[in-house]
Amino acid sequence: MERDASPASSRTTIKRYPERARYDRTTVEAILDEGLICHLGFAADGQAFVIPTTYARDGRRMLIHGSPAARWLRAAAGGTPLCATVTIIDGLVLARSAFHHSMNYRSVVVLGNAAPIEEPAEKLRAMEILVEHIVPGRCREARGPSAEELRRTLILSVALDEASAKVRVGPPIDDAADMGLAVWAGELPVALATGVPIADPNLRGGIEVPDYVRGYRRGGRAR
Amino acid sequence: MERDASPASSRTTIKRYPERARYDRTTVEAILDEGLICHLGFAADGQAFVIPTTYARDGRRMLIHGSPAARWLRAAAGGTPLCATVTIIDGLVLARSAFHHSMNYRSVVVLGNAAPIEEPAEKLRAMEILVEHIVPGRCREARGPSAEELRRTLILSVALDEASAKVRVGPPIDDAADMGLAVWAGELPVALATGVPIADPNLRGGIEVPDYVRGYRRGGRAR
Repeated sequence: MERDASPASSRTTIKRYPERARYDRTTVEAILDEGLICHLGFAADGQAFVIPTTYARDGRRMLIHGSPAARWLRAAAGGTPLCATVTIIDGLVLARSAFHHSMNYRSVVVLGNAAPIEEPAEKLRAMEILVEHIVPGRCREARGPSAEELRRTLILSVALDEASAKVRVGPPIDDAADMGLAVWAGELPVALATGVPIADPNLRGGIEVPDYVRGYRRGGRAR
Repeated sequence: MERDASPASSRTTIKRYPERARYDRTTVEAILDEGLICHLGFAADGQAFVIPTTYARDGRRMLIHGSPAARWLRAAAGGTPLCATVTIIDGLVLARSAFHHSMNYRSVVVLGNAAPIEEPAEKLRAMEILVEHIVPGRCREARGPSAEELRRTLILSVALDEASAKVRVGPPIDDAADMGLAVWAGELPVALATGVPIADPNLRGGIEVPDYVRGYRRGGRAR
């Protein structure tokens, strides 16, 4: 089990299905780069709250996007420890037995304390990274944020110091006694696919769908 | 804003983008029925942990599946307050300005205390509901769980008493001053799509891919 820049702490060492654990930087970064959203958790008075939000990887840190009005982002910016989890489902794993049904997936769990990005130039760059994470190429076209829009945006940064990945691949693993059953077993691959772009009803005439929208792809095997 | 069986508590009342909030039972249940996995959060010593896991809706409760060996499930079964969040991404929303980029999505946040399902007949039924949630039709074919397999499975139940949904649909909302920009704006729909089923390399000869696998569909517009 390779380990380098994402050292597993006692909190991120995977105890359940340890054979699925990955702590190497390449695996963690590839999952973060492919995922669209994270599920961000924070605790308040013993109760966890889990909120979906957009993010992007910026080198060895994770940028998390929100509005200063959001309760969780205010809490997070105030130094609450966070957990950001990114999960990509790759397939449904159908075993001969109900018990051994599973999924093929890649997930990353990041633990850390968030710091708000305040410096205007750094914040502008962070906002571009967040938009480019979702739609690569978009920042060359879209109008960039004004000073007022930047002020109205809260961007948090969490170091990728305490991160672990979990990956399941491959066919189902049935008990030997079940291998002869007349039941189909295998994997149904799944992935995020795009549909036909829907132009804004108020779009000016004569504007074509850009190539980076028409040809949008995001990892995965099923597309 | 319709409200019935999922009363919004002060904890689930949506403060950010309240116009996207939905508290009606039909919306909450439809999102839970379409989602594949939930992101389950629990707090330990002020630190939130967020773990992806499988679940299913069973009437007015949510069933959550795991192994008795999983740290989080042990904590959850011990009465820790949970937050289970299910998010379905429906589209990438490209505005003329970077600031107004968004996503179309449907999400549900459930807060509650979990209780383990212990009674064998109820647990067997819960396991069937969990498998059917992922692949409807599968339980008619797969070998059902043995008493020992049931013992090795932990299934938690969380009431859907405190649940809220958040839904964004439609085109980008740009500032009036940006409407004339020569920038394509609109939505790129996304959805989970299936690929070609991959038979287990050890599958017995003469077993066809079942119809419920070949014709698998799961909501969404992009497929």
